[in-house]
Amino acid sequence: MEGLTLVDTRHEENALFMAEGWALATGEPAVAAVTAGPGLANAVPAMAEAQAAGVPVVVIAGRTSLAQRGQGAVQDLDQLGVTASITKWRGECLQTERIPEYVATAVHQARSGMPGVAYLEIPQDVLGVSGLPVERPWPTGFPEDPRSQPVNSDVDRAVDLLQNASHPVVLAGSGAFFSRAGDALTTFVERTGIPVTTTSAARGLVDDDHPVCLGSLVHGGIALASSDVALVLGSRFNANLVYGGPPLFSPGQQLIQVDIRAENLGGPRRPEIGLVGDVSAALLAMTEAWTKPADAFAPWTNLFIGSAMGTLGIGLPFGIAARAARPGEPVFVFTGDGAFGLSAIELDTAARHRLPVVVVVVNNGGWGDVRHEQRMFYGEEADQGAILSNMRYDLLAEAVGGHAERVTEQAELRPALERAMKATDQGYPAVVDCVTDPEVMSDLMRNLGGLNLM
Amino acid sequence: MEGLTLVDTRHEENALFMAEGWALATGEPAVAAVTAGPGLANAVPAMAEAQAAGVPVVVIAGRTSLAQRGQGAVQDLDQLGVTASITKWRGECLQTERIPEYVATAVHQARSGMPGVAYLEIPQDVLGVSGLPVERPWPTGFPEDPRSQPVNSDVDRAVDLLQNASHPVVLAGSGAFFSRAGDALTTFVERTGIPVTTTSAARGLVDDDHPVCLGSLVHGGIALASSDVALVLGSRFNANLVYGGPPLFSPGQQLIQVDIRAENLGGPRRPEIGLVGDVSAALLAMTEAWTKPADAFAPWTNLFIGSAMGTLGIGLPFGIAARAARPGEPVFVFTGDGAFGLSAIELDTAARHRLPVVVVVVNNGGWGDVRHEQRMFYGEEADQGAILSNMRYDLLAEAVGGHAERVTEQAELRPALERAMKATDQGYPAVVDCVTDPEVMSDLMRNLGGLNLM
Amino acid sequence: MEGLTLVDTRHEENALFMAEGWALATGEPAVAAVTAGPGLANAVPAMAEAQAAGVPVVVIAGRTSLAQRGQGAVQDLDQLGVTASITKWRGECLQTERIPEYVATAVHQARSGMPGVAYLEIPQDVLGVSGLPVERPWPTGFPEDPRSQPVNSDVDRAVDLLQNASHPVVLAGSGAFFSRAGDALTTFVERTGIPVTTTSAARGLVDDDHPVCLGSLVHGGIALASSDVALVLGSRFNANLVYGGPPLFSPGQQLIQVDIRAENLGGPRRPEIGLVGDVSAALLAMTEAWTKPADAFAPWTNLFIGSAMGTLGIGLPFGIAARAARPGEPVFVFTGDGAFGLSAIELDTAARHRLPVVVVVVNNGGWGDVRHEQRMFYGEEADQGAILSNMRYDLLAEAVGGHAERVTEQAELRPALERAMKATDQGYPAVVDCVTDPEVMSDLMRNLGGLNLM
Amino acid sequence: MEGLTLVDTRHEENALFMAEGWALATGEPAVAAVTAGPGLANAVPAMAEAQAAGVPVVVIAGRTSLAQRGQGAVQDLDQLGVTASITKWRGECLQTERIPEYVATAVHQARSGMPGVAYLEIPQDVLGVSGLPVERPWPTGFPEDPRSQPVNSDVDRAVDLLQNASHPVVLAGSGAFFSRAGDALTTFVERTGIPVTTTSAARGLVDDDHPVCLGSLVHGGIALASSDVALVLGSRFNANLVYGGPPLFSPGQQLIQVDIRAENLGGPRRPEIGLVGDVSAALLAMTEAWTKPADAFAPWTNLFIGSAMGTLGIGLPFGIAARAARPGEPVFVFTGDGAFGLSAIELDTAARHRLPVVVVVVNNGGWGDVRHEQRMFYGEEADQGAILSNMRYDLLAEAVGGHAERVTEQAELRPALERAMKATDQGYPAVVDCVTDPEVMSDLMRNLGGLNLM
Repeated sequence: MEGLTLVDTRHEENALFMAEGWALATGEPAVAAVTAGPGLANAVPAMAEAQAAGVPVVVIAGRTSLAQRGQGAVQDLDQLGVTASITKWRGECLQTERIPEYVATAVHQARSGMPGVAYLEIPQDVLGVSGLPVERPWPTGFPEDPRSQPVNSDVDRAVDLLQNASHPVVLAGSGAFFSRAGDALTTFVERTGIPVTTTSAARGLVDDDHPVCLGSLVHGGIALASSDVALVLGSRFNANLVYGGPPLFSPGQQLIQVDIRAENLGGPRRPEIGLVGDVSAALLAMTEAWTKPADAFAPWTNLFIGSAMGTLGIGLPFGIAARAARPGEPVFVFTGDGAFGLSAIELDTAARHRLPVVVVVVNNGGWGDVRHEQRMFYGEEADQGAILSNMRYDLLAEAVGGHAERVTEQAELRPALERAMKATDQGYPAVVDCVTDPEVMSDLMRNLGGLNLM
Repeated sequence: MEGLTLVDTRHEENALFMAEGWALATGEPAVAAVTAGPGLANAVPAMAEAQAAGVPVVVIAGRTSLAQRGQGAVQDLDQLGVTASITKWRGECLQTERIPEYVATAVHQARSGMPGVAYLEIPQDVLGVSGLPVERPWPTGFPEDPRSQPVNSDVDRAVDLLQNASHPVVLAGSGAFFSRAGDALTTFVERTGIPVTTTSAARGLVDDDHPVCLGSLVHGGIALASSDVALVLGSRFNANLVYGGPPLFSPGQQLIQVDIRAENLGGPRRPEIGLVGDVSAALLAMTEAWTKPADAFAPWTNLFIGSAMGTLGIGLPFGIAARAARPGEPVFVFTGDGAFGLSAIELDTAARHRLPVVVVVVNNGGWGDVRHEQRMFYGEEADQGAILSNMRYDLLAEAVGGHAERVTEQAELRPALERAMKATDQGYPAVVDCVTDPEVMSDLMRNLGGLNLM
Repeated sequence: MEGLTLVDTRHEENALFMAEGWALATGEPAVAAVTAGPGLANAVPAMAEAQAAGVPVVVIAGRTSLAQRGQGAVQDLDQLGVTASITKWRGECLQTERIPEYVATAVHQARSGMPGVAYLEIPQDVLGVSGLPVERPWPTGFPEDPRSQPVNSDVDRAVDLLQNASHPVVLAGSGAFFSRAGDALTTFVERTGIPVTTTSAARGLVDDDHPVCLGSLVHGGIALASSDVALVLGSRFNANLVYGGPPLFSPGQQLIQVDIRAENLGGPRRPEIGLVGDVSAALLAMTEAWTKPADAFAPWTNLFIGSAMGTLGIGLPFGIAARAARPGEPVFVFTGDGAFGLSAIELDTAARHRLPVVVVVVNNGGWGDVRHEQRMFYGEEADQGAILSNMRYDLLAEAVGGHAERVTEQAELRPALERAMKATDQGYPAVVDCVTDPEVMSDLMRNLGGLNLM
Repeated sequence: MEGLTLVDTRHEENALFMAEGWALATGEPAVAAVTAGPGLANAVPAMAEAQAAGVPVVVIAGRTSLAQRGQGAVQDLDQLGVTASITKWRGECLQTERIPEYVATAVHQARSGMPGVAYLEIPQDVLGVSGLPVERPWPTGFPEDPRSQPVNSDVDRAVDLLQNASHPVVLAGSGAFFSRAGDALTTFVERTGIPVTTTSAARGLVDDDHPVCLGSLVHGGIALASSDVALVLGSRFNANLVYGGPPLFSPGQQLIQVDIRAENLGGPRRPEIGLVGDVSAALLAMTEAWTKPADAFAPWTNLFIGSAMGTLGIGLPFGIAARAARPGEPVFVFTGDGAFGLSAIELDTAARHRLPVVVVVVNNGGWGDVRHEQRMFYGEEADQGAILSNMRYDLLAEAVGGHAERVTEQAELRPALERAMKATDQGYPAVVDCVTDPEVMSDLMRNLGGLNLM
């Protein structure tokens, strides 16, 4: 396939995670192709994750041939049924000459409006026809990136509320990222002087070193909670935003929410003002309408991406995708030992495709959050299913020709990380297996319990 | 139920059709409530129709109690499964205290963005709890009617293209209607002098007697086809628009398409320019940007509504709903004899609720389109399943205390219609059973064949 | 179509009801064909009903052509999705040459094992290919009616329990009917002397006049409840059998349950002994194993069929189907006025196809059960949605050239029925519209309340 | 949980594979429990596999609490929708007091009739209620293992056909295995002298060393193809049996098919005689009816299990499950290097739970079948996506404290296997990484191409 780079993985779930990671690194839709039956089934968890996260991913799957359909062929599976509730769009192309049209539609659906997963399946005997002349140019049935903005009256109300706030804060979410609102957001916060914090997906839209940048929610959350007016860009009030309630938001606060879909506005928390439109266009309109003075500054990029659905094992495939998307930049993956296991085999893919990353395994020999939660509920002995063996994760790097480090003392950590980062110059991945104390519970873990997020 | 008028029907399919008809008459979301199992199943055809037509309808259904679920209760049906692909949103409320929240969400989903069907189910033992204090005010989690418009650069390109056209035409579809774009559209066409034609759903947005109004597509289609630039408002290029091709559109023509969802732009036909946003707001922005001169005039209303999906039997329920929505205006329903049969029993509902309509049955004793199509394909003898008996449809009006007319000569028609219209002053429906020649094929029928709409 | 009689109806829901009625009258699978989109959607309620009742029905539907799929064609609907949970088997035939294979499979699936609904869809351009030579004989991939019986050890335990019972009773359900167990059941009860009662579906398997026949559950229920051992043939312990509890069954009683599917045995009520196998074969095996003496007698047929799911409107289509299935026998349909409305238009079908039935409308001007239930819960004023107008249902018969009777005094009833029955000799239907007192509540109604069947 | 052994895995897909492996090793239903959202999604591929293979597995999943449902909770997923087409039975338990009833029903559905996957979900707040007294004993609503057999007339026809055959052969499939037909099958073949071959699932039902045993289909296939009458036990004519055609079956041959579901009989290949019933019971009935003489012999067990759906990565979880099911017997897993990668992390589970297996990795540095197939179609250069790195799989054993062997010469293999098998006495797994020639294509691979199995 000319002009396309193929990265083949060891498990289809990870192929999809890499596609999601690519989209999260570039803002562009990514494509993953899988085989029929078990191939598509293996992709399901990552399709659910990408769809929940609103990430533009196109999945193209094979399917039992028309001639063998319904006869118990190997890999015959009701793929359209299985994917119905975890996709934004589904299609099956039943005629060879319509493949270009269907592929164009899948891309259009994945990236238009609120992004999501577009699923296209092509039966083997529809795909396998050879020598078919392409009688017309690749279809271009869709206009280029049209955008909407909130109507002026809504923009004016929002600007008015913000200008009269004493401690306003901006929260940028994935909708801001996929709108490519980096420039518009930086311009807006420089024009207005309002500080900005981001969800994981939007981290890096405004440079972390920028004076108005509060970093991600882990650091900026307190400023958000204590603001009197908050401008929420491209994020719904779901569990990731604690349903718009404490500790991220306070009841007295006034909220302005911007989203590309009117359907996404409000819900568990009613915003004072709802704006419908592309986040970038909305910010430009608000900047234009702004009348008060402020300050200005300069950028670089700092990507950080997590999971919308709490799906484990995304770290390594996301990291490999980030390296493919930005070849010149170093990539670090931080993961627990438990989560690492779900996709560790993709170290082989990193090695084969020379997409080196440094994996830092925080190895406490178990599923730490599960262990601590169980102990809180059922007492100190309740370790059922929460203990892993003292596995040597560094050896996994060695198995694929990569660099291995095992760290048991804190003083060893920095040198190990430096050696690992340097070693990746050879094109192979490195694993820094950091043995940690299983008794220690993180502050984040300690505070999540009462929030009813599940 | 205070403040709510309940119109109870004879068949749940027609309850939904009436809700759809109400929304098409008022532009507001309508609600239909049905019982579990067969009640919901009976509603399915009309839910599919309303969803295909993009009409805001909320369906609330009962469901087997939690205590009897899975034990083979009467009326136990996987209602969420059956409705998955014919709804915009589905929800099941499993806790009594969450009913207000779910109802508010259903209404929000039905009417926000592109409208559609919101389906809510409530199990019997969740619904049947009595004496529960309403501890908090009815939830208001959603902002009031926020709107989007296309970004200025897209608006400017569109205005530029239109100002340089020699024969531009506007086509308004259901998206224009649900955006309540009547005023904005009238202002735009008066400011620009561009003539306007409409789909059935948008008929009446601009007064039929207005000098720039070409009427519905049946009459305005020729102007549309011969225009050099067409502005399409809130309509997709699906079968109802002949996929954006002949005879409605010509290949050389340039199209501008406005839709509230970017996903809906283009497809089988690529528009020169795609605008994303609310139709009314888009028209206002375009009017503001317009720089060339034109003329002006005055309105009245003339509603005409049809089926998006080719669903038969919608006529009478739509008509009853129109009468409920606009009590002071006369309502005529034109229907074939075949289609009339699917919902004729609702004459009883019209009578019971004093919602009189005049039904004009074009009675050719058969399924005319099927008969003519079969004859074209299989010869003159091919009348299998296309013949109905010479039923006396006028007697159905009599059965419910209404007014009956039977017309066999053209000269009798006008007096019969006048008597029928007058008779409805008593609050009862009238049926004018017009016997027509089964051998006559309509021009519309003659021309539809070659269009490949199914 | 040679050898096939086509009965075309006025509404697709009723086409399916007629197919279900045919299967219930003959024991043979019936076929209904409907158009795509709204046609299939209209069939949904009756498919759900037939599947819940375990009746062998094949539904063949059209579907959007492969060439127009996914482009918004009129009548484009995810039919496989909508029907997933209301069918036993689904298939879409995507190649013209495979049509015979798919049709044979649909029939096989509908009637094999526990019967149910088989749904087959054929896209328009797959169906519409003409001139295709049938290269091979119509496929015969399935063996003829193989049957299973319970293993001997299970049969012996069951016979032992029955022979030691003091008041045993047999309850025959739809599984007995579709197993065509009439002869085997008559032989068994004559050999053993055990009295038999039936569900609606099995009524007539043993002649109502037969000395051991207790009639349907309405009459035989008391004997069933007071028996010490009950043999349940082809019926699950669902709501129709009050979940195997009072008032039909008593807690101390021992039950033997025979079913063609092991999955259907037990559940809410655990049988003492479960037998897996065809009901007819099981009865033959039990008769052979029987060692105690008994009596013997002679038959005729008396069909009575109701709805498994509480679906209203089945009466008239079932009656028309019964007349088609048994042309020489008179058919009476007893229906409330509310239920009659849902399918009354099919009087036209009865007239057109000379399939006369006598419809007795018990016209109390409302939805009696709803009205009484509402009054019990909410007081005497609670008549919302429960009142119908005083419609003249007899005029509906006149509208199609049939015979009309209106009865307001009890003494008029018998003569009216006799005139109506005689009038049907002309081939047209008759309606006897019997005005009844809306204040009277039936005993059945009075007793159903406490059973928690929904 | 008293009396239950919990084996916690590293990836939910493998938890399900282990449950499937347990059922395939023991014939008993197995249970896997997973968390909501991503946990259930990860289980999907293995649920699809187990359902396609007809293996009794119960899956119990968590689910978003009723209180958070529909609000965008982390891990909120339409799990009933995703699993609809890959399960035999689904249920959601919405009331804490009904949990025992639902669990009993899930087990009943998984193992009754034709086995399959039963899926039960329990929302977090339904599961999390503590202190609820169990007011009644654990429900026992289902009778114990009732069985069916074919009716005598069908048995007699089958015996007659077999007795008149000159070269009959028996093929035993998974239906024979789950019927526990080992004894009945051994008795039958000893009584009749008919040789027997098996699918993978049924391997070991008759001892491989038994004189009449032809081994699995790989070895017994030729005898099957050249027989004049074949008795097929518990296998459908799907792709795994080449749709009942060559090279496994010949057109002239007469087939007798035994299956517990009449629906499974015939299809692509029509059997001369179809028998409905439990395989074991059918064999006993046929043995009884047999009148010709034959020979007799003695057993041991030799398990071999593969994938029904071509799902890769099942080897190691199946092997671990086999070791858990039969602790005293050595377990060898043979796997390619590609497939091993999908679940290799479960070496940790083998180590943690002291369930040692010897994994023999046939390491040809790529996806051999894909590579050879691509080359056949597209030429020698077509290695896209088919090459893996020269990964050291033996190091994975070392990483979990196990035994590592790397073999590059054939002479080293046997000693390496012996050392590995001995090493597993310590309770840790061993990996024998065997480097093979990527240019060699297996005979099986060479012959599969023309069979159109997908």
